[in-house]
Order: sequence, then structure tokens, then C-alpha cells
Amino acid sequence: MSTNARGNTLTQSVVTAIGALLSIAGTSIAVSAQNANDLEMPAVPISLKAVGSFFVGGRSVIQTPTETGVYGGGSAVVDQMYVQYMIPASARTSAVVFIHGSALSGKEYETTPDGRMGWYEYFVREGFPTYVVDQVNRGRSGFDQARFNAVRSNDAPPNSQSNLRRPSEEVAWVRFRLGPETGVRFSDSQFPTDAAGQLAKQSVPDLSPSSSSDSANYVALNELAEGLQKTVLVGHSQSGRFPFEAAIRNPRGIEALVAIEPSGCNAAGYTDESIAKLAKFPILIVFGDHLDASQKYGSSWLDYFKDCERFVHRVHAASGEARMLHLPDLNIRGNSHMLMQDRNNQAVADLIIQWIKHH
Amino acid sequence: MSTNARGNTLTQSVVTAIGALLSIAGTSIAVSAQNANDLEMPAVPISLKAVGSFFVGGRSVIQTPTETGVYGGGSAVVDQMYVQYMIPASARTSAVVFIHGSALSGKEYETTPDGRMGWYEYFVREGFPTYVVDQVNRGRSGFDQARFNAVRSNDAPPNSQSNLRRPSEEVAWVRFRLGPETGVRFSDSQFPTDAAGQLAKQSVPDLSPSSSSDSANYVALNELAEGLQKTVLVGHSQSGRFPFEAAIRNPRGIEALVAIEPSGCNAAGYTDESIAKLAKFPILIVFGDHLDASQKYGSSWLDYFKDCERFVHRVHAASGEARMLHLPDLNIRGNSHMLMQDRNNQAVADLIIQWIKHH
Repeated sequence: MSTNARGNTLTQSVVTAIGALLSIAGTSIAVSAQNANDLEMPAVPISLKAVGSFFVGGRSVIQTPTETGVYGGGSAVVDQMYVQYMIPASARTSAVVFIHGSALSGKEYETTPDGRMGWYEYFVREGFPTYVVDQVNRGRSGFDQARFNAVRSNDAPPNSQSNLRRPSEEVAWVRFRLGPETGVRFSDSQFPTDAAGQLAKQSVPDLSPSSSSDSANYVALNELAEGLQKTVLVGHSQSGRFPFEAAIRNPRGIEALVAIEPSGCNAAGYTDESIAKLAKFPILIVFGDHLDASQKYGSSWLDYFKDCERFVHRVHAASGEARMLHLPDLNIRGNSHMLMQDRNNQAVADLIIQWIKHH
Repeated sequence: MSTNARGNTLTQSVVTAIGALLSIAGTSIAVSAQNANDLEMPAVPISLKAVGSFFVGGRSVIQTPTETGVYGGGSAVVDQMYVQYMIPASARTSAVVFIHGSALSGKEYETTPDGRMGWYEYFVREGFPTYVVDQVNRGRSGFDQARFNAVRSNDAPPNSQSNLRRPSEEVAWVRFRLGPETGVRFSDSQFPTDAAGQLAKQSVPDLSPSSSSDSANYVALNELAEGLQKTVLVGHSQSGRFPFEAAIRNPRGIEALVAIEPSGCNAAGYTDESIAKLAKFPILIVFGDHLDASQKYGSSWLDYFKDCERFVHRVHAASGEARMLHLPDLNIRGNSHMLMQDRNNQAVADLIIQWIKHH
């Protein structure tokens, strides 16, 4: 398996496909049909009332001087959250906020690894004002570099800096349930496994296991929801429970909670008081297929699934509405952990949209 | 000066302004007129043939194991470049690629700190297929975490990890020429200084002074331009010279080179051979006002400007077309280093677009 070659080949073909888009606009670019197929060209343009980005959260801290002159201390902002948005010309009233998983960025919801439309654009085309964040300490949200620089200058011990986690391509293949073994796909896999090298490029170092990122994310999401006022929060994987945590802390502006393949639902951990708060919201939890296939690398999606089933029971016992959507129960087979990138990602999105419309 | 309070206040008002956008779409949200003014609401929707993102560049490396289990080594991709794009429904033939400056991300070209339209959207509205990158090792392009983790696990000396540079808010104020002293604005400043706290939130740690980022960026930009085929490369500040470097290495797909406030033009450093290669392209260099005001923190934009003037002379001597656009010479006053965020950013963009159309 030549991951590098595979990745580069696809990249070139995606760029060439972009060229194909341009050629439609009037240039004379030769593009092979095979490559152009890698990038979806929507038949209908998308019309936006607004497109852009801003930040929520953030606090000013005094930096440790690590050099003289330009980098000699002073204040910097940390814990801010980058938010990009597209608001369709004919918008529904409820906004959707997408939060990505571990060692990834908001890119996860954009164009898929094999060049198809991601959930970001799809939800906009379905009429939702849609917001995609980079988690605090990830991607365009930046992170606090001070601890790292203090280690570098021998002013702090090496283990005082966060571990920067990023699963290898080999681990991600199994952990994200592309197949039973690295390089081997499930025969019914919905993930575009030929483009796994592009998924690997989406990976960014993750400070979250050893930082205060989680609580800073909740603060930022609360601020975002309060501003938007009618918000469906959608978390995935490591952030699957973020919508719950944000809603427990501050319900204002939040209408509904969606957890896509969360890393568990904290069924035994939540107090009755927290469950009572969550029971006030419609809750949707979505899991794909082959949940028993990833235990080799420590993640047991089957255990997480069972934990979320117990969570659903607790919410029901508190007279709440919580729905477990286990796709194989609807005879939808082969979905990976990356539901928003799977070949049937629009069909899965339709189920979520149907649920949002119903509530 | 309470940077934190200032930043948070603006953030809340920007989010509230987003709420105002939604209210137009049919919801009943109360918004104060004062806050809604913070976010521009374009009168005309924007129609896109395509919107999305992909990666160029990247190579697979074997990671040093820093833990057992999930993070036990394996391969990862480094040196990839994240590229986001919007292609207008009625597109011109030439694509524009925007590259951001030091300690920033592609966000620099999106919505301005005070909520106005950035150059990304403006160029799309002017008909250009427009691409915004995150430099290699920055933002959504991720970075190679292995060196940092090796230090953390005592497998490498502290100074083997890159310094993560990020200028303080105080330094950035002077260095980006918002005013002569931190918190003091030039009386004619075009920068929205009330929103300086939002600019601070755009800051991300910068590995570039001590890594192989630059050459990896050139490789990625070459791949991008080759795919797009008719490309205007636009660099800014630390990346101001990236278009030159990419064009010297591989001219294919590149049509024109634009340097926005570059950190010098390497006038004395380029060989005659390199200048001859550059002389084949139309080149535009843009500088703002108050160039003599930032020497306190090591950056002398006046020196960089003079270096670029010498560069222009060398290109002319090689029969090339290079234009120095020093805005005060056109009686356009008060522009900061962040031309794409200044209050007159659309007027400055119009000058660049006029130049592109002419070539």
C-alpha cells in the first residue's frame, strides 16, 4: 500500500477536476474524464445570502517571554473558536452547527476525501444557515504556544507540554472502521477507501486529551448558540457529547442536540439533574455499521453504542425525547465512523434533516 | 486597554449580527441596530458554481512512537496544504490564490475583524474563481507533531522542537501599523482599530522560522497552479515572496504574481537567472502607509519597501513588467499592513483587480 502515492495521485486529480470546473466557465483546459469524476460538479449553483467567518470565545493571557524583541511576552488570545458560515438565500429559521472529531478540523464537513459534496454544503442547499467550527486549540482556532516555547527554552519540564495526538493512517483505517485490517476494506464499505490518503491529509495535531479544551469549547458553543438563538448542535466522535455538555451548562439558543458516533454518552456519569436538563431537548444519536470491528486499537464503538443506548433509556425515563438511529436497523449497511464522508452521506444527512424538521 | 473585554464585546455583537441575518430569513430575533451594523449584510446574494476544499502537497512519514497502542507510531501525512475555494456562477478564466502572512491563517482573507466582507468573497463577487490556502504547518494544514512529542517523552532535546512564534497583541498593533504606539491609532488609520481584539483571535502559532515550511509551501503552490492552469498567486507579508519563489521553481499554470506588503523582495539575493525567470510574469507589489512607523519591533516596512523598489528595478532591467503600487502615491492614506482588512479594502482590491484585468 503506497499511501503517499495514493494521496498524491488523488490530489492531482482533484485539482485537475477543479480545472474542469473552470473550463465550464469558459477556459479551454484539457481534462481527462476519469479525473474530473473525482470532484462533484453540482448541476445547480448555490445562492447565498451571506458567507464568512468569525470567532467566539477567547480570553487574553500574558505570554511568557521566550525571546527578546518581537516575541518578548505581552498578551495573546487563547481559547477562541473559529466559526465559518454559509447562509442560503432562502433560509430556514434553525441554524445547524457542526463540530468535528479528534485530530481533525472543520474540514471534515467540507468536500469529502473523494471530492463529493460534504454535509456543510448539503445542509446549506437544504436551506439551513450552517456553521462549521474548528474546536478550540485546533486548526484556525490556534492554540496557546506558550507552554511549548517554555519547554523549548528550558523554563519548564518536557512533560508540561501537551501531548499532540494524531492517529497514524494505519490506526485510523481500522479505528474509523474503513475495514477490518489496515488497507482491507469491508466488502460493503460506504467509505471511499481509494481516497483514504486524502482523509490522512485532514489530520491535525490534537491537544485535547491534556488541556482545558473541552470546557473552553462549551463556553464558545454557548456563546455561539446564544447569538444564533435557534440552534441545532451537531457533534461527532470526540465532540459527540459537546452538544449535551453545552446544553447542560446553558440551554439558551439551543433547540436540538445531535451526536454523530459519539465516543460514548456518559450514561452512568450524568447526574439526574443533568439528565433532566437534557430531557428538555430533542436528542438524536447516529451510529453506522461494523461497530464491533475497531477494538484492536482501543476504541470500542460497540461499547460506546451500548453506553448511548443506556443514555437514551435514562432520557426516556426522565420523559425526554431521545432517538437512537443505528443505521443497520434501517438496513443501511457499511457506514464507517466518518458518516459525513461516506458514499451515502447525503442519504444519512436526509435522515437527520427529516428528524430536525419533525422537531 | 481591556483587550479581552473589547474582543468579547465585538464577538457577541458579530454573533448577534448573524442573528440579524437570520431574522431576515423569517425568524423573530430582536437585534440592536448598533450591533447589527458590525456585520455587513450584502444587498445581493452571491451565486456559486462550486464551493469546497481540498489539499495539495503532502508526503507520508513514519511517526516516532510516543505511546503504546493507538499512538504507537505508524505513518502520517505532513507538508500538506489546505485549500478552500469558491467559484462564482459566472466565472472569469483566471483563478486567484490568496496566501496569508506570519502567525495567521487563511481566515485573514475572510470576513474582516469588524465584520465586513473580506477579499475572498469580494474577488468571488468580482468573478474570480478564488482559492484561499492555509500555509503548510499552519491552521487546517496541520503540522508534524512528532518532534514535539519526542521532546515531551525525553527522546529529543528541548531545542529540537520548533519555536512557535506568535506576536503579542501589543507588538502586532505597532508591527501591523495600526498606530505609532500600542492602543494609539494613526489619526488617518484605515484599520478598524476598535476590532483589534478580533484580529488577535486570528493569530495561530507559526512554525515557519525553523522548519522546512517554505519549500513545502512552494511545492504545494506549484501543484495548485499546475492544476488550476491560469493562476494569479497573491502572497502577503511573510508569504509575500512565495509567488516569486513558486514561479522561479515551476512557471506552469502561473499567469501573474502579486505581493501584498512582502517582508522584502530579496532584491540582492536573486540570481540574474531567477530575475530572468520572474521577468516573464507581470508582477504587482502593494504597500500601504506609515512605512516608517514599525521599527520599534524589528520590522522595518520602509526597508522592505526600498528592497522591493530595488527588486522592481532589477526586473525592469531584465525587460520585465513589475509595478510598485505605493498607495500614498495615489493619495490613498492611512492603510495598515493588513490591507485586506482595512476599511478601504474594497477600493484597494479594485486597484489589484484593475491590474489583473489589464494583464
